[in-house]
Amino acid sequence: MTEVNEGAVDLVEMIRGGRVESVHRGHAVICDGAGEIVEAWGDPSVIIYPRSSCKMMQALPLLESGAGRDLTQRQLALACASHQGAAVHTSTVAAWLHDLGLGESDLRCGAHMPYSDDAKADLIRAGEAACQLHNNCSGKHAGFLTLSRHLGAGPDYVEPDHPVQLAVRRAFEEVTGMESPGYGIDGCSAPNFATRLDALGAAMGRFARAREGGNPREDAMARLTAAMAAEPVLVAGEGRACTDLMRAMGGKAAVKTGAEAVFIAIIPELDRGIAVKIVDGGTRASEAVIATLLVRLGVLPAEAPVARRLTQGPITNARGKVTGGYEVRLA
Amino acid sequence: MTEVNEGAVDLVEMIRGGRVESVHRGHAVICDGAGEIVEAWGDPSVIIYPRSSCKMMQALPLLESGAGRDLTQRQLALACASHQGAAVHTSTVAAWLHDLGLGESDLRCGAHMPYSDDAKADLIRAGEAACQLHNNCSGKHAGFLTLSRHLGAGPDYVEPDHPVQLAVRRAFEEVTGMESPGYGIDGCSAPNFATRLDALGAAMGRFARAREGGNPREDAMARLTAAMAAEPVLVAGEGRACTDLMRAMGGKAAVKTGAEAVFIAIIPELDRGIAVKIVDGGTRASEAVIATLLVRLGVLPAEAPVARRLTQGPITNARGKVTGGYEVRLA
Repeated sequence: MTEVNEGAVDLVEMIRGGRVESVHRGHAVICDGAGEIVEAWGDPSVIIYPRSSCKMMQALPLLESGAGRDLTQRQLALACASHQGAAVHTSTVAAWLHDLGLGESDLRCGAHMPYSDDAKADLIRAGEAACQLHNNCSGKHAGFLTLSRHLGAGPDYVEPDHPVQLAVRRAFEEVTGMESPGYGIDGCSAPNFATRLDALGAAMGRFARAREGGNPREDAMARLTAAMAAEPVLVAGEGRACTDLMRAMGGKAAVKTGAEAVFIAIIPELDRGIAVKIVDGGTRASEAVIATLLVRLGVLPAEAPVARRLTQGPITNARGKVTGGYEVRLA
Repeated sequence: MTEVNEGAVDLVEMIRGGRVESVHRGHAVICDGAGEIVEAWGDPSVIIYPRSSCKMMQALPLLESGAGRDLTQRQLALACASHQGAAVHTSTVAAWLHDLGLGESDLRCGAHMPYSDDAKADLIRAGEAACQLHNNCSGKHAGFLTLSRHLGAGPDYVEPDHPVQLAVRRAFEEVTGMESPGYGIDGCSAPNFATRLDALGAAMGRFARAREGGNPREDAMARLTAAMAAEPVLVAGEGRACTDLMRAMGGKAAVKTGAEAVFIAIIPELDRGIAVKIVDGGTRASEAVIATLLVRLGVLPAEAPVARRLTQGPITNARGKVTGGYEVRLA
């Protein structure tokens, strides 16, 4: 019926009482540093929105333009982050905006309650509302504002025809190697460019091959990958899949989730990029598949608690009893 | 690959930027009061766990045994509820337990934070932990305790071989018209019996046909359906799909969601029962399908805000911008 569904294969089963209760279908692809497909499941030519999984591509113009020359690794990690609005995230973004002579009201991401339970409880106890700093994309938007300032462009940097978004689209299309067939508006109001899943995987392969000191694009790619891998907590937060996976891999890879069950990985030492899309948008399944592929490639220890948690469970109930688990099917 | 996935059809698309971003597959069935299939999508013979959608079946022995003779309609609605732990729910369950000479510690459902944002915030501000009364199933468990007391049975009423659960299984199998192929342990620690989706739909049809004053089973069915339809807030809570749907139907039908994207409806005036299962467990899709079927059958006004919200969206972002919506495909 639809592009994203065509050729999808069963990838993850949720098991309860020895019986399959739910099943997730999807597509996955592993590419090498030249962007060639090494292995695939389902149909990797489906068109998807990468959503937040492509934040490192959205940050490329920030570095390539020279606007982000003096940014720290922590700032670059935040530019690629879907953070949970903990104090470490909001305070770092606030300081970044302050350095630019800007403030929270210059953001265009909107406010939502932080994903962090602790941060949410802190707000409730203080009787405060969430602000735009708590938006999981506020670091990406601080990057957009940094580029916008550098370009001398106007304040509405999320508009698709704004110089920032035109630069993002150009970089995105170059790194994916294809023209985007269009965009949707993301949760943070920025355009999110559609692409083929294998083009997303190819881009992640190119990120994996890039080395610092190469041409400006390669240098930018390598710096962003290194920043994510070096600052796992800034990319997501305590207890989050991205953070736990990157910690368990000890800086050997960068991974990033995206809404509607997209997940990517960049593995420089193996010259590999991965892209996953679960058709129904179920994040538990994209997490299970990316973790399984990272174990399979040997970069994530199978015995790491996060690997077991994401690929097998267990699923427990309100009394802590094991009620089920996951089975990942990657033939 | 698996029973639940076989023969599933695309039912709900999530659209962003004019493009299908995610797709949910599933099965749906409409049955009449005799349990015969009237209409079906996908393969209604798949085996599923009904999860919380079958709470009105789990409450049958409570009434049929005479244990629940003096229970109010509000208590019966709570026995069938997945409530959000607001004060109206927890206080009513607490009073019920008190009437039995029991307390919160006699529950075996476990504690989890209430689904209600307000109730959660109240707990955080008070510095209190959630208790078993907040568990969405605490009303069902108060019903189990009432039956257990009547039967003179032991305290561990969630054990599959406890007289309460044996009675539940017997009623469940009789009303679905088939032997359950087994059970899984639910989030609240009670066994949840697997059945075919069309058997679940047939049971809902039988509930729809049942009238008060008939034989004990019919009387129990009719009382439970009437209690749910009369007390929509107790069955779920403000802002919840079940509550909003039952309110919009003005007491003409009872509906109930279950975890992993099961949804049922009981429509006495039409002599119809409905059962839906989305294969991937995505609740947004089971809500979209049940609302679409209720509109199609003429019992839910198409222009009701809840009907539009569940079947079309819109999906909005952190700045309130419309980013997408749903399309339900019921050929």
